[in-house]
Amino acid sequence: MSKHDWNRSRLPLLVHLRIWCRSSPQQRTTDIDERMPRTRYLYWIACYGVAMSSTAQKTDQQSTLIDCDVHQAWVSEEEVVAYLPEEFQDRGLTAPSGQGWANPVTEHGIARNDAVPEEGPGGSSHELLEEQLFDDFGVDYAVLTGPITNYDLAVHPNVHYAKAAMEAYNDWQVAEWLEQDERFLGSIMVAPHAPDHARKEIERLGAHDQIVQVLLPGAHESPYGHQKYWPIYEAAHEAGLTIGLHSSTASKGVAQQPSTGAGVPLSYFEMHAATRAVQMGQLISIVSEGVFVEYPDLDWVFLEQCLGWIPHVLWTMDQNWKGLKDAVPWLERRPSEYIRDNVWFSTQPSIDPDDPEHLPQFFDMIHADETLVFSSDYPHWDNDNPKAILRGIDDETNRAILSENAKSVYRL
Amino acid sequence: MSKHDWNRSRLPLLVHLRIWCRSSPQQRTTDIDERMPRTRYLYWIACYGVAMSSTAQKTDQQSTLIDCDVHQAWVSEEEVVAYLPEEFQDRGLTAPSGQGWANPVTEHGIARNDAVPEEGPGGSSHELLEEQLFDDFGVDYAVLTGPITNYDLAVHPNVHYAKAAMEAYNDWQVAEWLEQDERFLGSIMVAPHAPDHARKEIERLGAHDQIVQVLLPGAHESPYGHQKYWPIYEAAHEAGLTIGLHSSTASKGVAQQPSTGAGVPLSYFEMHAATRAVQMGQLISIVSEGVFVEYPDLDWVFLEQCLGWIPHVLWTMDQNWKGLKDAVPWLERRPSEYIRDNVWFSTQPSIDPDDPEHLPQFFDMIHADETLVFSSDYPHWDNDNPKAILRGIDDETNRAILSENAKSVYRL
Repeated sequence: MSKHDWNRSRLPLLVHLRIWCRSSPQQRTTDIDERMPRTRYLYWIACYGVAMSSTAQKTDQQSTLIDCDVHQAWVSEEEVVAYLPEEFQDRGLTAPSGQGWANPVTEHGIARNDAVPEEGPGGSSHELLEEQLFDDFGVDYAVLTGPITNYDLAVHPNVHYAKAAMEAYNDWQVAEWLEQDERFLGSIMVAPHAPDHARKEIERLGAHDQIVQVLLPGAHESPYGHQKYWPIYEAAHEAGLTIGLHSSTASKGVAQQPSTGAGVPLSYFEMHAATRAVQMGQLISIVSEGVFVEYPDLDWVFLEQCLGWIPHVLWTMDQNWKGLKDAVPWLERRPSEYIRDNVWFSTQPSIDPDDPEHLPQFFDMIHADETLVFSSDYPHWDNDNPKAILRGIDDETNRAILSENAKSVYRL
Repeated sequence: MSKHDWNRSRLPLLVHLRIWCRSSPQQRTTDIDERMPRTRYLYWIACYGVAMSSTAQKTDQQSTLIDCDVHQAWVSEEEVVAYLPEEFQDRGLTAPSGQGWANPVTEHGIARNDAVPEEGPGGSSHELLEEQLFDDFGVDYAVLTGPITNYDLAVHPNVHYAKAAMEAYNDWQVAEWLEQDERFLGSIMVAPHAPDHARKEIERLGAHDQIVQVLLPGAHESPYGHQKYWPIYEAAHEAGLTIGLHSSTASKGVAQQPSTGAGVPLSYFEMHAATRAVQMGQLISIVSEGVFVEYPDLDWVFLEQCLGWIPHVLWTMDQNWKGLKDAVPWLERRPSEYIRDNVWFSTQPSIDPDDPEHLPQFFDMIHADETLVFSSDYPHWDNDNPKAILRGIDDETNRAILSENAKSVYRL
């Protein structure tokens, strides 16, 4: 007898029992007595007995036992990957990890194949890094920003763990990198949802000669204009450090919002262009909420943010300021003036318009001679060789971007 | 005796009872027996009896009765508003409504004061609209996009209601506007989470002479490249209609994501600049997912999106296409080519760079002569008079933007 048949044969009893169970304890005695004659009531009691004894019998006889939740597994995921269409096989069985995409670009995820040493991931070998960055690219000083997985730790919901992880990273960076080579400049990485802890980290390490900035993950719980983050800015300001804001995707940890206002991008291709909306929103937020009014000497460097959206922020905010001044009475000057004075942008990913005339024109629109600093994004697949970018840009602007602006913002 | 005093007098008993309640049923009998001598156990039992009888007495005597949840109210919210600091008084007690901000710009919210008729909101009087738009601005044909509250209905979680509301709007628009004046051109507004219903609406009304587009709210559940929306595009394609995507903030209805990847903007000022991230993400999404490969003759008009971010999409997507072609094998051409062929942008909010030379340079970067269409955004506070924008732009481009491009995309 199937589950379905067994249930159907006892349907009148089950329906009545269900009504009875849903009624309140007081209703149970009175309603049943009132709604049916005593003989019919006894009939129901008898049916109930049959149902119960039948259940007991099934258990006694150990008939068909069905377990509805058993997790079988593969020895290696390759077994299942073999069943995937070819175009998805190189990503294996990668769950989204809160990002909605996973798409290795190279054999090593997002690292240049030739930047991956025999042991460890790209960027983990001093020798290889120094050879490729200092010798090949001709870089003299390198501001270290750590592996991008570190930005995920900085938004970890377990704030106790996030704090410990930031301390560990900062200590490791000082011992293993800064103290090994004076060409390395360091960043104090902080978990922005622990602003008091961030202040302690800044006070603990901010005086180190090679520490030049406090590094924030691109996306966090709220836009960075929110006053809950201001203790971090105050501490950086007091320590004479710059704030670095590095591109990172949202949809993870305490930064649960998708990386764009349109939702979670479907592919790495879509994400790579769309996620710059995070930094666009952050810049608009810190200017709108008056961070630069409160901390006029605090500089920010936006890292790996793409450049093509900057005119939107400069022009739209200035225009809105004319009509909406009342909403932000604390802003004493045009928004673009704060950005020009206090915000720097790193060059990578560099832009490469079809028409070569557009590059110097665009650089003029965003005041590149005052606001851009060179960055390679080594060892990632799309890193920029300083010799291959900035074509058609005059020598003075070139020098400012490759050297002078960074000296100024990082107070070297 | 206050609640505090009453509790304190019975503290030892309460502490013990709390320990006892937290323990498992088995522990309760054994632990108590083991932890204290029989006489002390009896003492506790006696105390418990006193506590219980005291509680019973209180109920019998109907002593102090405390209700811990009573919702008192104001006759008019003005009573409370009087206690607000002056700078917030003009917004009253406005709850966020899923947007996180509320900030009336004019006496009438976001409508021009002089565009609000004696009865009804801005845009509701044919006479006033015709006078200000056709006579003052010199507009010949107006594509109607409805009140912005309509975009909120299009993302209503109750999809049955959303469908009914879209039908009602579409019928009202045909009867009350299109059939009253042939200078009005209409949009079929759809709820994108009901693509089959959208198709029916397009089939029902698409053949109307004055209907020129299918209108989508700026933000929805997922980026618009997602294939769940494609039945809408297919129906528009078959009906020979354009898709209009109008700016709207997210954080509401089925579009729960904040309007930016940085989170929910704090003020209307911040939101007004930051929310364009929604449309930036939508453009990147529809190009990435191959909407224009599937529907090469389907044109899209992005409405009220700001212009300053467009170079980012053109340049970054082309650059990424070189390195990440494998992720989007369906794209046969550079992303910017699809945008140049199939996407139009409306002019409002217009841009106004400091340096007048930057406007024609920027227009050249975004191929404005082929891709921009004029829009006023009447009757909103920041609407554009066609006579006041496009300064420094050559006559031919001017004519294309004010007239020819719209004729082309809307097939007039």
